[in-house]
Amino acid sequence: MSAIDPQAASGTPGAETSSPPRTGSRVDGRTADQLREVRITRGWLDHAEGSALIEFGKTRVLCAASFTAGVPRWKKGSGTGWVTAEYAMLPRATNSRTDRESVKGKIGGRTHEISRLIGRSLRAVVDMKALGENTIQIDCDVLQADGGTRTAAITGAYVALADAIAWGKLHSSIPAAREVLTDSVSAISVGIVDGAPVLDLEYREDVAAGTDMNVVMTGSGAFVEVQGTAEGTPFDRAELNALLDLADGGCRSLREIQASVLEQSR
Amino acid sequence: MSAIDPQAASGTPGAETSSPPRTGSRVDGRTADQLREVRITRGWLDHAEGSALIEFGKTRVLCAASFTAGVPRWKKGSGTGWVTAEYAMLPRATNSRTDRESVKGKIGGRTHEISRLIGRSLRAVVDMKALGENTIQIDCDVLQADGGTRTAAITGAYVALADAIAWGKLHSSIPAAREVLTDSVSAISVGIVDGAPVLDLEYREDVAAGTDMNVVMTGSGAFVEVQGTAEGTPFDRAELNALLDLADGGCRSLREIQASVLEQSR
Amino acid sequence: MSAIDPQAASGTPGAETSSPPRTGSRVDGRTADQLREVRITRGWLDHAEGSALIEFGKTRVLCAASFTAGVPRWKKGSGTGWVTAEYAMLPRATNSRTDRESVKGKIGGRTHEISRLIGRSLRAVVDMKALGENTIQIDCDVLQADGGTRTAAITGAYVALADAIAWGKLHSSIPAAREVLTDSVSAISVGIVDGAPVLDLEYREDVAAGTDMNVVMTGSGAFVEVQGTAEGTPFDRAELNALLDLADGGCRSLREIQASVLEQSR
Amino acid sequence: MSAIDPQAASGTPGAETSSPPRTGSRVDGRTADQLREVRITRGWLDHAEGSALIEFGKTRVLCAASFTAGVPRWKKGSGTGWVTAEYAMLPRATNSRTDRESVKGKIGGRTHEISRLIGRSLRAVVDMKALGENTIQIDCDVLQADGGTRTAAITGAYVALADAIAWGKLHSSIPAAREVLTDSVSAISVGIVDGAPVLDLEYREDVAAGTDMNVVMTGSGAFVEVQGTAEGTPFDRAELNALLDLADGGCRSLREIQASVLEQSR
Amino acid sequence: MSAIDPQAASGTPGAETSSPPRTGSRVDGRTADQLREVRITRGWLDHAEGSALIEFGKTRVLCAASFTAGVPRWKKGSGTGWVTAEYAMLPRATNSRTDRESVKGKIGGRTHEISRLIGRSLRAVVDMKALGENTIQIDCDVLQADGGTRTAAITGAYVALADAIAWGKLHSSIPAAREVLTDSVSAISVGIVDGAPVLDLEYREDVAAGTDMNVVMTGSGAFVEVQGTAEGTPFDRAELNALLDLADGGCRSLREIQASVLEQSR
Amino acid sequence: MSAIDPQAASGTPGAETSSPPRTGSRVDGRTADQLREVRITRGWLDHAEGSALIEFGKTRVLCAASFTAGVPRWKKGSGTGWVTAEYAMLPRATNSRTDRESVKGKIGGRTHEISRLIGRSLRAVVDMKALGENTIQIDCDVLQADGGTRTAAITGAYVALADAIAWGKLHSSIPAAREVLTDSVSAISVGIVDGAPVLDLEYREDVAAGTDMNVVMTGSGAFVEVQGTAEGTPFDRAELNALLDLADGGCRSLREIQASVLEQSR
Repeated sequence: MSAIDPQAASGTPGAETSSPPRTGSRVDGRTADQLREVRITRGWLDHAEGSALIEFGKTRVLCAASFTAGVPRWKKGSGTGWVTAEYAMLPRATNSRTDRESVKGKIGGRTHEISRLIGRSLRAVVDMKALGENTIQIDCDVLQADGGTRTAAITGAYVALADAIAWGKLHSSIPAAREVLTDSVSAISVGIVDGAPVLDLEYREDVAAGTDMNVVMTGSGAFVEVQGTAEGTPFDRAELNALLDLADGGCRSLREIQASVLEQSR
Repeated sequence: MSAIDPQAASGTPGAETSSPPRTGSRVDGRTADQLREVRITRGWLDHAEGSALIEFGKTRVLCAASFTAGVPRWKKGSGTGWVTAEYAMLPRATNSRTDRESVKGKIGGRTHEISRLIGRSLRAVVDMKALGENTIQIDCDVLQADGGTRTAAITGAYVALADAIAWGKLHSSIPAAREVLTDSVSAISVGIVDGAPVLDLEYREDVAAGTDMNVVMTGSGAFVEVQGTAEGTPFDRAELNALLDLADGGCRSLREIQASVLEQSR
Repeated sequence: MSAIDPQAASGTPGAETSSPPRTGSRVDGRTADQLREVRITRGWLDHAEGSALIEFGKTRVLCAASFTAGVPRWKKGSGTGWVTAEYAMLPRATNSRTDRESVKGKIGGRTHEISRLIGRSLRAVVDMKALGENTIQIDCDVLQADGGTRTAAITGAYVALADAIAWGKLHSSIPAAREVLTDSVSAISVGIVDGAPVLDLEYREDVAAGTDMNVVMTGSGAFVEVQGTAEGTPFDRAELNALLDLADGGCRSLREIQASVLEQSR
Repeated sequence: MSAIDPQAASGTPGAETSSPPRTGSRVDGRTADQLREVRITRGWLDHAEGSALIEFGKTRVLCAASFTAGVPRWKKGSGTGWVTAEYAMLPRATNSRTDRESVKGKIGGRTHEISRLIGRSLRAVVDMKALGENTIQIDCDVLQADGGTRTAAITGAYVALADAIAWGKLHSSIPAAREVLTDSVSAISVGIVDGAPVLDLEYREDVAAGTDMNVVMTGSGAFVEVQGTAEGTPFDRAELNALLDLADGGCRSLREIQASVLEQSR
Repeated sequence: MSAIDPQAASGTPGAETSSPPRTGSRVDGRTADQLREVRITRGWLDHAEGSALIEFGKTRVLCAASFTAGVPRWKKGSGTGWVTAEYAMLPRATNSRTDRESVKGKIGGRTHEISRLIGRSLRAVVDMKALGENTIQIDCDVLQADGGTRTAAITGAYVALADAIAWGKLHSSIPAAREVLTDSVSAISVGIVDGAPVLDLEYREDVAAGTDMNVVMTGSGAFVEVQGTAEGTPFDRAELNALLDLADGGCRSLREIQASVLEQSR
Repeated sequence: MSAIDPQAASGTPGAETSSPPRTGSRVDGRTADQLREVRITRGWLDHAEGSALIEFGKTRVLCAASFTAGVPRWKKGSGTGWVTAEYAMLPRATNSRTDRESVKGKIGGRTHEISRLIGRSLRAVVDMKALGENTIQIDCDVLQADGGTRTAAITGAYVALADAIAWGKLHSSIPAAREVLTDSVSAISVGIVDGAPVLDLEYREDVAAGTDMNVVMTGSGAFVEVQGTAEGTPFDRAELNALLDLADGGCRSLREIQASVLEQSR
């Protein structure tokens, strides 16, 4: 893209060895604990106070963070800020076209659910008092979907959020000395495919998975959200533990990629 | 209620001893691993093929199961059935009145999310092939809310579902010999309140909880859903394990109450 | 229902003799001027300022009255209060399931019409100046429908309203000496079935009725609403008079049941 | 209007004497039992199968009847037809502008209620078997409102309906020999203003009325609908009778005007 | 229409000779540069501050202008006024019935587009500073459609607007000396039918047109809007010029009719 | 962007000389007849049958073309195909965030208008008979807006459309020999800024423009759409001609860029 100055970081940190990169038994050759190629292009938008285009393989999500002074009415006078998120998908992000929710006139349950998840995940690492009476609205729009859109959205949204907070400090909306972010946050999907726990499911795996779990973790390794669903056979405690172990490794890798892209000067 | 023939079962099975019943440190005197009084009134409705009024303390949810021959268009010809659910709350179920979603003209994200959860939970114990091309629609309407409405809904909905399936067999819509239900299912909330893991949160505890988790389990003890959220401080692996242990005990008790109410002749 | 302390009153006051109770020629054996068994459980809800579960035979309506200080914007500064109502039906209240209006995204004409009727009926017995700048919102939710849901709703809503006003006095939102209620109000349906005028139609009669009329009357015997509709053959003046006579008797009986349930200490 | 060939009939039939016409005590000088000037312009529209512009004084309603072969799905194969109606008001029909329901995105309760009333009133005089599997859709659009819009709508809609049925016979959609209309139908409002019963309330009287009643009658003098509402003081049986007497006279006059306009060749 | 005092002006100014009036080759005998009969009935409504019923042949549009003191929030304190418009069509304005947008719950793209066009066209001749902080809302409701509804609407709306401004001066909402209108505005459609450019297309021509253009012009002959669309074959520069010439002549004629109707005392 | 294989073409063809590129008097230094840098990345999406990311300076629109066998019901059996388009803008495409239309529950007039324009423009160069009973749905989503989004959308959509048609031929949905596209189509905005006609307005110019015109032209130089609007002073015939001349030059350049990107093998 010629018009932008990308500050991108990428990596396939789950790979034990880099050559040959894909020797596992999964549909795309990955090993069970291997992430797809992750790429974050920071500052993809010119207008937004923070933005990132994040790619987990073919999944591409554009995350924009909008900083505005002031808070919603129900928080006025509280001295604390607010962070909220909306998730949506372009009609042709998917394999066959999906009707627009704006045309249908209402937002589907899945969209609502993911928007709420992203908002909660980000708020878990924001000190609302330090943010002061400012609002950051995150928009995560899926440009192309190939599994893991909500986890990519959370991971990319953190980068956009960090830049919007930096913008707020630069423009004196937030005192520069305040630590608004208490930690970083990232997310990854795990699941049981053909009886085996695997990390970062692409769409074909997602469809085939008996159990599907999304895990949101802080940079320091604590859980923000654990959402596991048995689509087919219910899962037992041992399987749950194996999935949590995989997720832990995946989130560690994502944390490093986030840190790497954010430490570049913007 | 004079007009009905209640087949109710109740119990406070989490209590180790029955006298004195409430000596714990919680707001209502319960111990950490104690359920509220649970009561299921089976057949509360005259028209529905299956129904149950379930109470977890002051929380009261009316669960109705509607059996209809035939399936939605996208399942026609598949030879398999469908189970779906809708959750809603009466405007004055809550402490202060909430506006009706029908008046607002749209369903909120929370409502959607819970409806989807109930549907998935029930489908996990239904053999769709055995159900045949029939649809069971579950309606869970919260008449009074005091925490745990979604878990009460799932637990009560299972009873209504079982009766609707029995109705289908009685009316020859389903061959009598088929085992449609592969297991039972129940759900309970757990959370960390004042730093301590507790079972079956009432509303005051729910508001105060740092971490809140809803766990759906089969009668044989496997997980259908695990949904944990850090509302405040992120939680670590040890806390997660403590919560899962509590939930396991709670679901065992609920399974017994369900079995007890269902073994009565209707 | 174990968890509640019911203050219920019931009776079949239209019956001339109590044994044998049902010797008339109607589908359920009632005489033309006989009400179904009426039962009012006052205080069915824990949170609402006033509530009543009312039953006309199998018809069951949960009426909740919510008291809030203040009035809608268009009444501010008027020194007078406001009473409004919303009516709705649970999806499986009816014989076959009805889709939720919240899911359809709009409220049907019938729902609107009945909500407006209930509101007008209650306002007819409220001295808005005595109420002061307070609002009472009535919610009437039909849990089970078997004809006469709107008349049961009005009759039960009056009890909930009376308790909400008492609550307002107890909490000093209304001066205790003020008479806010100028009279009581109740409602009953009448109709011409198989050529004969009958009182309090159940669903099977409602469907068969050539003329259907809902009558709302004050405790002192004046009309608040008269809504008669010829579903089949238009009706003449003599038939109209016969129906009004029946309604007059029915409303007298309902007034007594209301009075009886309200005179118990709460 | 140059472009149309009006077949209009008018009259002020409630006046006992024609000179001086207005000597009563009402705001516009009418006597208690006097209609406003009524005028019906038949065939006001070029495209519609039947149409009439009806005026009750300043109230003007355009009634269009659309004839289509076939019936809604739920009536298919029944051999019977369907008549339905929609009522609406132009935004500046009223004294101050009202927002459009299309812009608000939903239809108000009053609109729904009146649409349903008009439909029921017309169906009361249609032999659906004689109509055959044809649908007549009536649209009543209030171009200017000055009280009595629903009664003017019903009265004008009957004329449009009659012409649409004639059209159906002319085009062989209905056998010419069949009597589709079993009677005529008209409607008028009555009310108690300053303690006195009066006929055909204009807007200023409507606002001041303590009781307001709409009465729909067949040409042969039977009731189709009686809808009386106490806006202020409840009304007694004597007042109800006085109002019904007035309505009876008003509907007789309207019946004559309808007959007169319909007997002209079109 | 008996109830109104029409101030109508009409003419067929495009006709070179008045007898025989229609000798051209078009479907209704007009020449290529001939308008249909245009008729404007000023003051058709009693309540509106300005109104006009305009007819272009069988096309009839009721234009109402509502004057209100004050402006929308986003203009408050600006010292300038606002003019806005809404366009709609009655369901049976068209040859076959169209569903109501209020019933469908949303406004179609065509309706929006025309509403916006009318608003922009009128604002082009209003000095918003001279109008002061007042709002004029124009409603254009198509009672009958036969092509050219948007151009008739603009042309009639100008007359309603002029009267609403006069009303504002009469009631001292606008200083009498201020020139609020900077010019007049009218509109006409032109198109290429069977290869030939023609003026003021009726519906049958509209359907057959290869290119369709709506032109809005001020009284002094400048363009406010030029909207040309190739429905079939794209058009070249020469055709565009021929169409603009025709439109120029049509708008001149409309300007004269507007002036003639407005110079009568009201 | 690592994951895609871009086939991009770009150019600033309006510049007479390429160095120094920007010496004009416009806000960004362009001359009056100079386009912004135009860049088309073909095949930006993996799933869509055709796609292009088009940039006019900072304006970025993602165009996706979805090919499906079959046509909407109203075209079934006609033997002809259909092309339709939807336009939308991401919430943070603009300088300050705009609320989502899906959240507002309805689509604005501007969105509708532009969607319709894009659809008409593309249909003007498609031979529907040659397309056969297939549908191509175009989605144009504005990722970043800086003026000219609708003209960029049309220009990019043509490329996506061409690729979707090629896909249809490759997959034998369309006979390979048929010429479905009769011509190419592109669009550009022109306007009068500070009294001078200029080409391809960026946002700052758009806001300042007295007249704004969008022109859609075929590759062979005929007009598909001419939409000129006087936002301030009405414009005369000479100005209109100057604007059309500029647009003609701009569309010629765009046609060359389209051709260049499409002639690369995909």
